[in-house]
Amino acid sequence: MDYTKIELFKSKLENKSKMRKIIFLAIVLCYGTSNLWGENGSRLWLRYEPLPDSLAKSYADKIQKIYFPDSETGRIIDSEFREAFRAMTNKELYLAKKGGEAKSVCFVVDTKMKENYQIQNKTLAKDSYISVTAVDETGLLYGMFHLLRLMQMHENISHLDIHEKPSYERRILNHWDNRDGTIERGYAGSSLWEWGDLPNVLSLRYKDYARANASIGINGTVLNNVNAEAIFISSEYLPKVAALANVFRPYGIKVYLSINCSSPALLGGLDTSDPEDARVRKWWDDKIKEIYDLIPDFGGFLVKANSEGTPGPQDYGRTPVSGANMLGEALKPYGGIVMWRAFVYDPASSDRVKEAYEGFKPLDGLFLDNVIIQVKNGPIDFQPREPFTPLFGAMQKTAVMPEFQITQEYLGQEKQLAYLAPLYQECLQADTYAKGQGSTVAKCTDGTLFPHSITAIAGVANTGNDTNWTGHHFAQANWYCFGRLAWNNRLTPEQIADEWLKMTFSNDPAFVEPVKEMMMESREAIVNYMMPLGLAHLFAWEHHYGPAPWLNIPDTRPDWMPSYYHKADSQGIGFDRTKEGSNAVSQYSSPVSDIYNDINACPENLLLWFHHVPWNHRMSNGKTLWDELCYKYQSGVDAARNFQKIWDQEGSFIDKERFKEVQSNLKTQTRDAILWRDACVLYFQTFSSLPIPSELERSLFDLDIMQKNGANEALYYGMQQQPK
Amino acid sequence: MDYTKIELFKSKLENKSKMRKIIFLAIVLCYGTSNLWGENGSRLWLRYEPLPDSLAKSYADKIQKIYFPDSETGRIIDSEFREAFRAMTNKELYLAKKGGEAKSVCFVVDTKMKENYQIQNKTLAKDSYISVTAVDETGLLYGMFHLLRLMQMHENISHLDIHEKPSYERRILNHWDNRDGTIERGYAGSSLWEWGDLPNVLSLRYKDYARANASIGINGTVLNNVNAEAIFISSEYLPKVAALANVFRPYGIKVYLSINCSSPALLGGLDTSDPEDARVRKWWDDKIKEIYDLIPDFGGFLVKANSEGTPGPQDYGRTPVSGANMLGEALKPYGGIVMWRAFVYDPASSDRVKEAYEGFKPLDGLFLDNVIIQVKNGPIDFQPREPFTPLFGAMQKTAVMPEFQITQEYLGQEKQLAYLAPLYQECLQADTYAKGQGSTVAKCTDGTLFPHSITAIAGVANTGNDTNWTGHHFAQANWYCFGRLAWNNRLTPEQIADEWLKMTFSNDPAFVEPVKEMMMESREAIVNYMMPLGLAHLFAWEHHYGPAPWLNIPDTRPDWMPSYYHKADSQGIGFDRTKEGSNAVSQYSSPVSDIYNDINACPENLLLWFHHVPWNHRMSNGKTLWDELCYKYQSGVDAARNFQKIWDQEGSFIDKERFKEVQSNLKTQTRDAILWRDACVLYFQTFSSLPIPSELERSLFDLDIMQKNGANEALYYGMQQQPK
Repeated sequence: MDYTKIELFKSKLENKSKMRKIIFLAIVLCYGTSNLWGENGSRLWLRYEPLPDSLAKSYADKIQKIYFPDSETGRIIDSEFREAFRAMTNKELYLAKKGGEAKSVCFVVDTKMKENYQIQNKTLAKDSYISVTAVDETGLLYGMFHLLRLMQMHENISHLDIHEKPSYERRILNHWDNRDGTIERGYAGSSLWEWGDLPNVLSLRYKDYARANASIGINGTVLNNVNAEAIFISSEYLPKVAALANVFRPYGIKVYLSINCSSPALLGGLDTSDPEDARVRKWWDDKIKEIYDLIPDFGGFLVKANSEGTPGPQDYGRTPVSGANMLGEALKPYGGIVMWRAFVYDPASSDRVKEAYEGFKPLDGLFLDNVIIQVKNGPIDFQPREPFTPLFGAMQKTAVMPEFQITQEYLGQEKQLAYLAPLYQECLQADTYAKGQGSTVAKCTDGTLFPHSITAIAGVANTGNDTNWTGHHFAQANWYCFGRLAWNNRLTPEQIADEWLKMTFSNDPAFVEPVKEMMMESREAIVNYMMPLGLAHLFAWEHHYGPAPWLNIPDTRPDWMPSYYHKADSQGIGFDRTKEGSNAVSQYSSPVSDIYNDINACPENLLLWFHHVPWNHRMSNGKTLWDELCYKYQSGVDAARNFQKIWDQEGSFIDKERFKEVQSNLKTQTRDAILWRDACVLYFQTFSSLPIPSELERSLFDLDIMQKNGANEALYYGMQQQPK
Repeated sequence: MDYTKIELFKSKLENKSKMRKIIFLAIVLCYGTSNLWGENGSRLWLRYEPLPDSLAKSYADKIQKIYFPDSETGRIIDSEFREAFRAMTNKELYLAKKGGEAKSVCFVVDTKMKENYQIQNKTLAKDSYISVTAVDETGLLYGMFHLLRLMQMHENISHLDIHEKPSYERRILNHWDNRDGTIERGYAGSSLWEWGDLPNVLSLRYKDYARANASIGINGTVLNNVNAEAIFISSEYLPKVAALANVFRPYGIKVYLSINCSSPALLGGLDTSDPEDARVRKWWDDKIKEIYDLIPDFGGFLVKANSEGTPGPQDYGRTPVSGANMLGEALKPYGGIVMWRAFVYDPASSDRVKEAYEGFKPLDGLFLDNVIIQVKNGPIDFQPREPFTPLFGAMQKTAVMPEFQITQEYLGQEKQLAYLAPLYQECLQADTYAKGQGSTVAKCTDGTLFPHSITAIAGVANTGNDTNWTGHHFAQANWYCFGRLAWNNRLTPEQIADEWLKMTFSNDPAFVEPVKEMMMESREAIVNYMMPLGLAHLFAWEHHYGPAPWLNIPDTRPDWMPSYYHKADSQGIGFDRTKEGSNAVSQYSSPVSDIYNDINACPENLLLWFHHVPWNHRMSNGKTLWDELCYKYQSGVDAARNFQKIWDQEGSFIDKERFKEVQSNLKTQTRDAILWRDACVLYFQTFSSLPIPSELERSLFDLDIMQKNGANEALYYGMQQQPK
C-alpha cells in the first residue's frame, strides 16, 4: 500500500471509532512495511517517495505529457522523469507529439543559450506547460533533475523562472581507487570499478553512479588513485576505462585518469621518464593518441608528482612546469587537460604549511592554459579545520582548482556524522584579499577574478560498493553537497542540507528542522572534540581515526608526528607561524597576513595554527587558553550527545533500518568523542599542569592506558572488540 | 617543616611582597613534602597531625601531665596519648604522681560506674584537670581515644562532661579470611593473619589492627571465614589463635572463631557430627575446654550451618536449635556464646527473601540464652538497598544481632566510593512496629525492647594487608562508621563522616563540607546507577561487580540469576511480594506489611522489591515507571561525575598520594556507573519497548557487546586491559 492510498484510507476513516483506527494501523503495519522498513539507503536522494495526495493531484493536473529529444540522453530523461513521476503521483505520463503542448513538460536544446538550463512555466492559450531548455542535452538532464528535486521537496511549480549556470566548468570526483579494489581512505567498502570484469561485464551500479552524479551536476570522474599505478593507461586497461566512459557519457560525465610520472619507464620500457627527453615526449604523445582513439571525450590527467614518494619531473632535476606542460602540449589537440596537484612537502622543512606556496607560487604564469593546479583547501591535509591555502589568490596567472575531501579521512570516517558543506563553504567564502576585499577563494577559482580557459573543482570521493554507497547514511550528504557547491558556490550549507534531507528522508518539518540543525553543527562538533582552536593532526598513526597527540615513532618523518603540529610545552601550545616564527603568515595578502600575525586579531578558531599561545592567555570570553581548550573539548562531547538525543526523537519519521544504523553510529561517535577529549585534554595537561575547570565533566579514560594502547591502534577498536 | 611552623612563617610573611610569597611557597614545596606527599593511608584516622599553633598552645596549657593505671592497658594508654599529644602539640607530657593533679589528664578505673566511661573537666583549687574514669581499663582506653578524637577535631576541651555507654555489648568484626591467606569478598589484599608464621612470629600489624579497633570501640573479632575450614579449631591452629588473642587482649578485643559443623567428623574422626549424638557432644566439650585452656577469654563461635552448601544439624534431621544449643551448653561454663546465622535459603523456594523468617521465626524462644541469631540487614544478601529483614522485631524471645557488610561486595568493591553509614542507619532506624511505632531495628536488637542476656552486632570486615588496610582510602570510613554505630546506634552518618574526615584528611571546612556531602550521597548514587527503585541482584556471575541483568546460565540455581529478582517482562518489572504474589509482605508487622503491600503507599525506593509494576505506572512525581527508571540510572551517573568534580577541587587540602589514588578510583567509578546504566536501561528496554526520555544522555555502550563480553567477566576488566 503506498502513501497516497494510506492517506486516502486515513481520511475516510477519520471521525470513525477508535476500533477502526486500530484496524487501520494494523493494515498499515502489514502493508506498509515495504515502504517503511525496506530502506537500505541505496536510492540515495533519488527516492521519489509518494507525495501527499493533494500535492500529487496538483502536479498531475499540471503535467500530463512529456516531450524530449530523440537521443540516448533524451531517453534517459524520459525514463527517469516518467518513473519518478509515477512513483510520486501514481500517474502515467503521455508522450507529447511536439514541444510546448499544453500540460506537458518539454525538454528542448537551445545551443545559443548563455545559461546552462532554464525552467519556466509557459502559457499556451488557456493552458500552460513547463519548458526546460538547455545549451546541450546534459543541461536538459540537469534541468530535469532540478524539476524533480522541486517536486521531491513539495515545492510549488506554477511560477518557475529558473536560470542556471555552473560556478565551475569541470566538477570532478577523484576516486582514490586501486586496481585490487581497495580504496585509499575509503570507508564504504571496495571500489565500484570491477576491473577484472571490465570491459565485457558492466555492473548495473555504473549507471546508478552516473545518474546520481548527473542529478547534482558532477561532470567528471578521475577513476584511479592519485598514488597512481601506471597500469591504468596500459593497453590492457584502456578498453576497461573506455567501457566505463561509454556508460557515463550519456549522463554528461567525462572520465579522467591519475597517471604515474614514471609510466614511460614502467610501461614503455624507456630508461628514463624525464619530461625533457624526446623519447619520453614521444611515448606520451603516442599514449594520448591511443587513449583518445578509444575515448574521444577523455577528460585528461590528474598528477601527484614528487609528493609523499611518488615519482615526478624533479627526479630528473626538472620543475613541475616541465612535466605539466609536456603533458599539456600532448593533450591539447584533443581538448584534454592536466590537473597538477600542489600537495608537496619535504620532511626537512621547518613548516610544512609553507611548501605548496613556496613550490608553486614562483611558477605562476609558466604553465600552459590547459594545465590547472589542484590545491587542497588547506595547507596541510584535509584537517577538521585549516585556514585556506595561500596559493588561492596568490597564483593569478595560472588556473587553480580547489580540492576538497568528501571521504572523511580526518573527520570520523564512516563512523561519525560530519556534514561538510560548512567546511567547503568556509574555504570558498574565505577572503584572500588578493584583489581587495571580497576576493574570496570562490571568486579566485571560478573565473570571476582571474579568467582562465578552464575552471574546475575536485572532491575526493566517498563512494564504495556498500549498499548505501557511502558507509554512513549521512555521508551521502557530503557527496550531494560537494556536487551542489561545485555547481553553485553561492549556495548555503543550510539550503543544501534542506534539499538533501527532504529528498533522502522526509519532508516533515518536525524531522527536517532538528536534523538540519544537527547537520549544521556536526563538523564544528568534531573540530571541538578533536582539535579546536586551530590545532591540527593529532591523529593516531596511519588510520587517522583516533587520537594520539603523544605519538612519537623514532626514525619517522617528523612532519608526520603530532608534536610537529601542536608544539605543546610548559609555556603554551600552538605553532608560531607569525613573523617571529615560521612567517607562514607572510604568504597571505594584507590585511589577512596582519590579522593572522596578531595574536589578538587572529580568529580564535585558528589561534593555535598561527601562534604559540601561553596557557594563561586571555581569550575573548575572558577564559584562559587552557580553560577554553578544556571547554571546547567538552562542548564537542556535549554536541555529540545532543545529536543522539535529537536523532532518537526522529524514529517515527523514517524507516527503521536507517534510523537504527544512524543511531548506532551516533553512539560510537559519542564514545569516541569522549576518547578524543580525554586523550587530548589529559595529554596537554601534562604540559600545562593546570586543573581541568572544576565545573567540567571529568575524563573517563586514563591517559596511560590510552597511550599504551592507542598509539598504533585507536582505543576504540579495543572497545568494540572486547576480550573474552 | 611542620604545619605549625608553616603557619607561623606564613603569618610573618603576610603584608610582604609578592616575591616573598613565592619564596615562601618554594620553601613549603621543599620542606613540606614529607608531610604533604608522604601519606599512604596506613595511619587510618589516627594520624595526629600537628595542630594550628593557637590550638596546640591552648591544649598544652591545659594538659601537662598524665596519670594512668600500672597495667599493660595503662601503659598503652600512656604511650598512645603521649605520642599523639607530642605529634599534635609538639609538647612532652610529664608523669603525674597521683590522680587528679592540676593540668593533668587522669585515667582511673571505677568498677561501680554505670557508664562505660566518663570524661570531665574537674577543678582543683585554681587549676583544673581532665578526669577520665571508666568501668574497666578498656573503658579508659575508649575514653582516651575519645579525648584524642576531640583534639584531632580541634574541639574545645574546657567544658567536657561526657558520659558514654555502648548500644551493643559485643561489637564484632567478621573476617571472611581463609587459611591460605585469601579473603572471600576481600578487596584489600591478603589476610592480615599470617598463619604460617604464627604463633612464633607476630606481625607488627596485629597491634595496629587492635589499636584501630579499640579507637572505635570494636571489642570482638571472628578470625576466619564463615564458610569455615575445620582446621582453625585444631590443636595445631589453636596456639596460633591464642597468640593473636594475646596481642588483642590489652586492647579489649576478644577472639571468636567460625566453626565447621562437621568438625567432629573432620577433626575428631567420628562417623557423624549429629548434635544429638553423645560422642559428638563429648567431642565439642573437650574441644571447648582445650580452647579455653589456651584462651581464657575466648568469645565463642560463629556458625553458618546448612547454608549455601555448608554442613549443619539439618544434615541429620535436626533443627538449628539442636545444633546451637548443643554448642551453647558446652560454651556456657566459660562465658562463651554462639552466633548462629539465619542466612539460609533453598533453591526450590519461590521467594528467597522469605526463608530466613520461615526458618527461624518458628524457633523463637527455643534457643539457650547464650545463643544469638545473627541476621543480615536485608533478606537477600547485602544488596545496595534492601528492606530490613523481617526477623528483626519478629523474633522476640531469642537474642538477635544485625550483620552488616563493611566490605563492599555489592557496592563497587575497592573501586568505588560508597560510604555505608547511611545504609547501616537506614536499617537500624527502620521501624518494625513490632511493639508499636518506634520499634526500630536498633531498639529490637540493642536490648531496649527485648532484653536478653547478650546484645551484639557484627560487620563483615573490609581489611586486608594493603598498605592502607582497605583498598579504597574512603573504605576506611566504613570500618570506622561500623565501629562508631556499634558503639552508639543513634549517631548520624553526617556526624560520623565529619569525625572521620577531620581525623583522616583535614579539618578545613572547605575540604570537609563538600567531601562530606559527597560521602553522604555516595551510597544512593550507587543504588541509582546499579539498581534503583528496589531492584536487586543484577550482578554479573560470581564477582558481583559489574552488571549482567540478562545473565542466564543453564543448570544453575535459579535464585542466583538476576531474572529471578527483576522479573522484567513486556508488562512491567519487579517481584510481586504482595498478598497476591509471594506474600513476603505478611512477614512484616502491621502497618509495615500493609504499606509494603500497597503499590501506592510502598516507598518508591523499594517499589520493585515488593511489586511487579507496569511500565506506565505513574510515580509520585508524575513520571511513568519506565521514565523514572531511566532518570534514576542517569542521576546515578550524574552523581558519580559530580564526585569527580568535587574531589578535583580538594587537591590542595591533602597529600598528593591519596588525592591521586582517590581521583583515579572516581574515574573508574564514573566509567563503571555508565556501564551499569547502559547495561540495565538497554536490557530492560528490550522488555518495555519504550524510548529513553529524549532529554536524557544516550547510552555509551552497546547492549549486544555488553551481553557478549559481560556475562562471565565484567566489561570493565576488558576496558582496563585493552588489547594491543
